[in-house]
Amino acid sequence: MKIMRKLIVSMALLCLACVINAQDYYKTHRESWLKKAEEAKPELFQTTYSPQYLVKSVADPIAFQGWKMERFDDMSYLYDQSFKKVKEVIVDFGKHMTGFYTFHLKTTDKAQDAPIRIKFTFAEVPAELNTSLDPWKGTLSRAWMQDEIITVSQIDQDITIPRRISGRYMKIELLAAPPDFDFALTNMYFTAYSSAKEVKTTLQDNVPQDIREINDVAIETLRECMQTVYEDGPKRDMRLWIGDLYLESLANMYSFQNHELTKRCLYLLAGLAAEDGNLHANIFEKPEPHPQYSSYCLSYNLLYNVTLLEYLKASGDMETAKDLWPVVKRQVEDAMSYLDENNIFNQNKKGYVWLFFDWRDGLDVSTPMQGLMIFALDKSYELAKILNKEDEVRDWPLVSKNMAKAARKELYDKNRGIFLSGSNNQISSMSQIWMIISGVLNQKESQKALKTTLSMDDAVYPGTPYAYHYLIEAMVACGMNEEAKEYMRSYWGAMVKKGADTFWEQWDPENEFLSPYNFFPVNSYCHAWSCTPVYFIHKYPEVFQK
Amino acid sequence: MKIMRKLIVSMALLCLACVINAQDYYKTHRESWLKKAEEAKPELFQTTYSPQYLVKSVADPIAFQGWKMERFDDMSYLYDQSFKKVKEVIVDFGKHMTGFYTFHLKTTDKAQDAPIRIKFTFAEVPAELNTSLDPWKGTLSRAWMQDEIITVSQIDQDITIPRRISGRYMKIELLAAPPDFDFALTNMYFTAYSSAKEVKTTLQDNVPQDIREINDVAIETLRECMQTVYEDGPKRDMRLWIGDLYLESLANMYSFQNHELTKRCLYLLAGLAAEDGNLHANIFEKPEPHPQYSSYCLSYNLLYNVTLLEYLKASGDMETAKDLWPVVKRQVEDAMSYLDENNIFNQNKKGYVWLFFDWRDGLDVSTPMQGLMIFALDKSYELAKILNKEDEVRDWPLVSKNMAKAARKELYDKNRGIFLSGSNNQISSMSQIWMIISGVLNQKESQKALKTTLSMDDAVYPGTPYAYHYLIEAMVACGMNEEAKEYMRSYWGAMVKKGADTFWEQWDPENEFLSPYNFFPVNSYCHAWSCTPVYFIHKYPEVFQK
Repeated sequence: MKIMRKLIVSMALLCLACVINAQDYYKTHRESWLKKAEEAKPELFQTTYSPQYLVKSVADPIAFQGWKMERFDDMSYLYDQSFKKVKEVIVDFGKHMTGFYTFHLKTTDKAQDAPIRIKFTFAEVPAELNTSLDPWKGTLSRAWMQDEIITVSQIDQDITIPRRISGRYMKIELLAAPPDFDFALTNMYFTAYSSAKEVKTTLQDNVPQDIREINDVAIETLRECMQTVYEDGPKRDMRLWIGDLYLESLANMYSFQNHELTKRCLYLLAGLAAEDGNLHANIFEKPEPHPQYSSYCLSYNLLYNVTLLEYLKASGDMETAKDLWPVVKRQVEDAMSYLDENNIFNQNKKGYVWLFFDWRDGLDVSTPMQGLMIFALDKSYELAKILNKEDEVRDWPLVSKNMAKAARKELYDKNRGIFLSGSNNQISSMSQIWMIISGVLNQKESQKALKTTLSMDDAVYPGTPYAYHYLIEAMVACGMNEEAKEYMRSYWGAMVKKGADTFWEQWDPENEFLSPYNFFPVNSYCHAWSCTPVYFIHKYPEVFQK
Repeated sequence: MKIMRKLIVSMALLCLACVINAQDYYKTHRESWLKKAEEAKPELFQTTYSPQYLVKSVADPIAFQGWKMERFDDMSYLYDQSFKKVKEVIVDFGKHMTGFYTFHLKTTDKAQDAPIRIKFTFAEVPAELNTSLDPWKGTLSRAWMQDEIITVSQIDQDITIPRRISGRYMKIELLAAPPDFDFALTNMYFTAYSSAKEVKTTLQDNVPQDIREINDVAIETLRECMQTVYEDGPKRDMRLWIGDLYLESLANMYSFQNHELTKRCLYLLAGLAAEDGNLHANIFEKPEPHPQYSSYCLSYNLLYNVTLLEYLKASGDMETAKDLWPVVKRQVEDAMSYLDENNIFNQNKKGYVWLFFDWRDGLDVSTPMQGLMIFALDKSYELAKILNKEDEVRDWPLVSKNMAKAARKELYDKNRGIFLSGSNNQISSMSQIWMIISGVLNQKESQKALKTTLSMDDAVYPGTPYAYHYLIEAMVACGMNEEAKEYMRSYWGAMVKKGADTFWEQWDPENEFLSPYNFFPVNSYCHAWSCTPVYFIHKYPEVFQK
């Protein structure tokens, strides 16, 4: 016990020294990192889309969130007659797009002598257009909703709404119709942007149609999120989060292979780290790159390290990996400072620290974090070895081993073969998932833990595609290949069956209205962390392409 | 009777010939006229205004339309604290302005991670901010109201609302407040434009204060309406109407003396005349100069002639007057085609023709039109003489004389000494006014007609400053100088007392909510046709400057 205390004191002193070193290092490198991020900024490719046809909303209890769109006429119905007669219409562009919408009002009788006012509401999914938004119930900004009221003082010219829009459907409502002249709404188009170009991977010929469709929707999801950073969602948030970056960069490796974008994001996050070298969980590009200062999410910071390792493996870019190695070290050292004397990660050791794993009310994250940290430690050490930096981090394998031991000792219910989490011994898929991914359990134990938990009605099950990603990863890791495929089919496949053009931020087949923000229309329906089927399908063809 | 018929037939043939000639003439001149209009386009002078202080709306039965603004704090109240706390505020810029509004949202805590939505409502008068606009009751476009909802995706930069705004007050309401960061509204300014520069006339030292104030407000009204044309109202309509042009050009002669602007407007109207050479009552400048095709207002067309005459007298620009002489001729010839065999103007001779004199429900305009046409004929002939064109229009003095005779014979109630109008023998100020201005009545008869009518409770009295202009003109014309001054004081002076920064489109002290458009907030509260006190005060100093 005395030895243990000494070890802790010396580790703490070491950490303090590390912080000081890290501060110096960041000071001298911040600028060059941001410059490298700027240099790696991708070109945005522009595609112009025309509306496909007019649709109407139809209530349907089987449709996603109770609404579907039915085609009712061609665009000529709108373009060829007075908009004062049409008054309200919904346009379907046929696909999810991110960019800018342009319309044209054409005088058809006399001359415009008053402004016209039109409300445009853009939507990713039908229910967004069929749910009363006010009074606003969401916990995020009401302004995320894409309803824009435009006063048109001068018609007979193209007008582009200055706000970047993301969606497939557009409702148009005439709010102010001047009495003394007539006009038609015509020549609409959408200028879509993405930094993704062609897909560089293909599927085997015999891949089942539903897997093929899941793959396609995953690719579209990623494409829409690939802007000048990997955005989490092009409709809402529109920014770089580490957790999304990790999954997007994996999906990118098996699709667009635009590794420069990954490099840019890694450099941006490094260049915008806090003074002590800890990363911020999310950052913004405009007007100048800057972090969300208050965002510190330790589970995400550790995934940065894994992202850099996977980037190195995919790109072979040793220079970047070496350049950013101190960032990797700093995140591990920071995480280690939360370990208690039993080698258990203690979320409250230094005041509460945010650990994100899933949107699921009441999920206890202590056991998942124990697993994630072991996983990240091992991956970070793997990176150290590739970079010949083992000497700097000789203690990491031991810390990882001790944490694994501690997990088995403190968190594992041997009798039932499952991990528990927190003071209330919560049973969740997430605890098993991370203990499997981290290799704490052997294959047999892993399968038992996961199968047991998934069969329990009262266990906390995953709530988002982000969590399902790790579930599939865990299943593949422990040889539950059939189940992995089955879960992909039943989870992402169900979104496709429900009409998804892109995969959603939150999807719980038991409750289509679930929202982390207390109001489902503000959910993102094209969300980065949902795009990983393309990764699974191509990384594990023997599992998913059969 | 036979001779009369022959005369009519030959006049009709003459008119047909004239139309053909006019068409040819316009064809060859239209382009050069529009070119000259473009060359005379004035520079817009830019002035930047800062908000003066914050105000709150206070209900007050004595205040104009029941509302006044009371100062409640300095701008620092708004600028120095979270706008999420302020939520709603009214800003007073201290004066009426026309141009563009710019604001700046400054991050004060963390970083912006969601769009903000703010509603800005601009107003010329307090009641605009204190009257529920929806459901909309006006007969003009709801979009004239200056409420704009702006989604701000990126703060920490200046943002200018793209719509041109006109007003003094601005209400700001925070519609969407993102929870995770804080910001302040700061650094607002208004970039105002006008083509008017310095005032070139001064008042005598002993001018009473109230006249001085009326003069100042008139000048501000004109300044705001002087853009790249004489606009009728910078908030609503924003275009060139002949009736407003006439009065604005008169006021301009006694203030800014920017005769180039008058020239531009005369050329624009000529260049955009209909194929038969008749003018359109109003025209637009953008995207290319074009008329309101359906607008044909014969009372206005005849005032075009008077405007050109007065322009020539003020500027000495013979070249323009000669160039546009055929336009003058055409308008007179057109008007003459409406005369019946008794030399009475017949509004329905060729189908109904629009004759504007005032916004006053039920006003019969047949007698006023008889007077206006005589006045315009005489003024047009005066122009002909200056241009040595009498030979072309030898019949005009006779037509004028016959019309005057006919008026006395058919429309005059000799017993009561007043003119009647229409089949119901309507008694209105407007009928007397135009018979006085046209010189049909002598001074004694004029005074009798006007005084009698003004003393009658059931006579139709003027409803707008446009009509009051002609009332004052008629009073001066017949030597009712004291009354002229009294009416100016009680009419325009009452607006000043009610807090007018600029004079209003409609003002009836008996009913402050009167509106030609069924809803008073859409009235223009800075309206060109109300600016003529500056003309009267300087043209007739012996009447108004004492």
